[in-house]
Amino acid sequence: MAQVRAGPSRAEPSRAARGAMSLEALRYRRGSLRILNQLLLPQRSCYEEIGGVRQGWEAIRAMKVRGAPAIAIVGCLSLAVELHGGAGMGQDKTGLETFIRDSLRYLVTARPTAVNMARAAEELGAFASQEAQREEATAESLRESVIQWAEAMLEKDLQDNRSIGEHGARHLLQASPQDKVTVLTHCNTGSLATAGYGTALGVIRSLHALGHLEHVYCTETRPYNQGARLTAYELVYDHIPATLIADSMVSVAMKEKGVSAVVVGADRVVANGDTANKVGTYQLAIAAKHHEIPFYVAAPSTSCDLSLAEGAEIVIEERPSQELTDVNGVRIAAPGIGVWNPAFDITPHELITGGIITELGVFCPEELRAALPGAVKGE
Amino acid sequence: MAQVRAGPSRAEPSRAARGAMSLEALRYRRGSLRILNQLLLPQRSCYEEIGGVRQGWEAIRAMKVRGAPAIAIVGCLSLAVELHGGAGMGQDKTGLETFIRDSLRYLVTARPTAVNMARAAEELGAFASQEAQREEATAESLRESVIQWAEAMLEKDLQDNRSIGEHGARHLLQASPQDKVTVLTHCNTGSLATAGYGTALGVIRSLHALGHLEHVYCTETRPYNQGARLTAYELVYDHIPATLIADSMVSVAMKEKGVSAVVVGADRVVANGDTANKVGTYQLAIAAKHHEIPFYVAAPSTSCDLSLAEGAEIVIEERPSQELTDVNGVRIAAPGIGVWNPAFDITPHELITGGIITELGVFCPEELRAALPGAVKGE
Repeated sequence: MAQVRAGPSRAEPSRAARGAMSLEALRYRRGSLRILNQLLLPQRSCYEEIGGVRQGWEAIRAMKVRGAPAIAIVGCLSLAVELHGGAGMGQDKTGLETFIRDSLRYLVTARPTAVNMARAAEELGAFASQEAQREEATAESLRESVIQWAEAMLEKDLQDNRSIGEHGARHLLQASPQDKVTVLTHCNTGSLATAGYGTALGVIRSLHALGHLEHVYCTETRPYNQGARLTAYELVYDHIPATLIADSMVSVAMKEKGVSAVVVGADRVVANGDTANKVGTYQLAIAAKHHEIPFYVAAPSTSCDLSLAEGAEIVIEERPSQELTDVNGVRIAAPGIGVWNPAFDITPHELITGGIITELGVFCPEELRAALPGAVKGE
Repeated sequence: MAQVRAGPSRAEPSRAARGAMSLEALRYRRGSLRILNQLLLPQRSCYEEIGGVRQGWEAIRAMKVRGAPAIAIVGCLSLAVELHGGAGMGQDKTGLETFIRDSLRYLVTARPTAVNMARAAEELGAFASQEAQREEATAESLRESVIQWAEAMLEKDLQDNRSIGEHGARHLLQASPQDKVTVLTHCNTGSLATAGYGTALGVIRSLHALGHLEHVYCTETRPYNQGARLTAYELVYDHIPATLIADSMVSVAMKEKGVSAVVVGADRVVANGDTANKVGTYQLAIAAKHHEIPFYVAAPSTSCDLSLAEGAEIVIEERPSQELTDVNGVRIAAPGIGVWNPAFDITPHELITGGIITELGVFCPEELRAALPGAVKGE
């Protein structure tokens, strides 16, 4: 669930050329964006047309699309679709720039705590201003540039996930005495949380494609059940041999089921390698250490925030108690009980014993700062 | 969820004299047994009359009553109620003995894997035979003896739980630098799983009664949610300050919420101190060790099975996958996903750093064998 930033590439997306995507949270071609309504999963698989910014905002707000990379991509692509459809037509480049910046500001309000959409809005807004200020720029060249920026963002996320998958798979196989590895993962970090392929689930997909995956254990990931609902759905969809377990069964699975490695995603990795991810990740890392099983974090370099020195500086969002006490609108817990529901926890870098898998390679937490490109360091 | 055996006491139960019970899984006076239908909790608190063996069997089968001690007690008391109502009247003592043994055999079939009911049936059956063989015995004296045996079993469980609570509270307070302690617990080990008061929850009740309890964290205990449904219900009922967390939040709670100790129950403690308990207990013990928090197991000595040398010899029951994939009849998990659902796991004795709390005192796992009375050792 990494933050995503468009790279310098301006190539036209060529999704089909990349081979059959296993499962797509979104389907984009210039002028058309459709998203898989994740609220209906796993019961129904239904794509909905996003005709522009307003519908993009609504889909993000309603959590039809979720996962940090996917939110930012859907937001920016909804603007690209609206621009391609002729929005702001007839305005001069300054008027169009204002329209673009206003649209981005609006998109950020759909999930105000989703920092990645805010960051993408800031960057794309700055890019639009810079383009508009070029002497030779016209409203039409500005329109085209912004559409290409959003398309490049999609492309970059896909490329990064593929690279993460390949680097991660290679590292796991080198570290394992077995020819086939068994991986345990948490939450959803797959096609449904990204532009496609996934981060931690991308590593699993790569291992499967290489013929070196023995089995996957996925946790149900209480309280929002992303593992049971979404990761299980992706694994079944891709015919990857997999077993669902409760979060409380991780340790006994490690003891009895020959788990070779744990691979999880990250919401944020800070300068010393401490990592914020879905609540329960910290416990997974402790259990992995106890069983001497390597623990990996898979995330694009854009999820690394070197402006923070250590994990203690990360503010953890607390979610409504209903997520824990109710399931599908039915009350489970005894009325009157107090609830604590932190959405994330911090895994200290010393527990990330396998490494941090990025699109640039796999690094020890201590190596991360030196390994990242200057642009990211400067954040 | 310990196995229970009646002690030598033949005193008439005097439940009321023990002070107000906070919450009762069952209400017994000679000739009358009512049980709290736990299937309706936490929404409704409804007691149902158990008029005899047939209704006892049905209540156990339907899981209206659960928890190892409670199952055995309800089974034996349902026989006591039927005997008091005149069952087998007019038969000679041999005929009555046959009736008693047949009834017990029938009760065991309600939950065939519940070893405690089987054990109680064996013991009470043997006791009935022995009584019947006494020269001066009559059908009526046999009837009276069996009723008293069942009543003594109830009384003994209550007494044992009170003792466990007191021993445990004292030990925790001595080990803690704080005046008030915060306890984390798992599953349901309270009034609803025993004759009353509870084992691990008995320790918590004792701490609360002494004014030395700061706070309780209870896990929801997936997949059957005994913590969210039952423990939370008991804690709210008793006005004990408590917070519900997901099983995945245990480690972050230990890190951030000042947990002084973990106290859990046990299904079985074997000779070297290895303990079988609700799945997730092993993970809790690993997390406690990582955070240097003492980890206690609370169980009556009758739950100690010295016939097994170590935990690896305990066979772990696997439960239906629906417990994990469905909640209240609604499918949560993606269709087609494989499921592993062990009901219990084994916590190795070296992780039981606080001690094993029994009605006889608190022991290190290594001391347990020497500490237990001969009768239990001989098993």
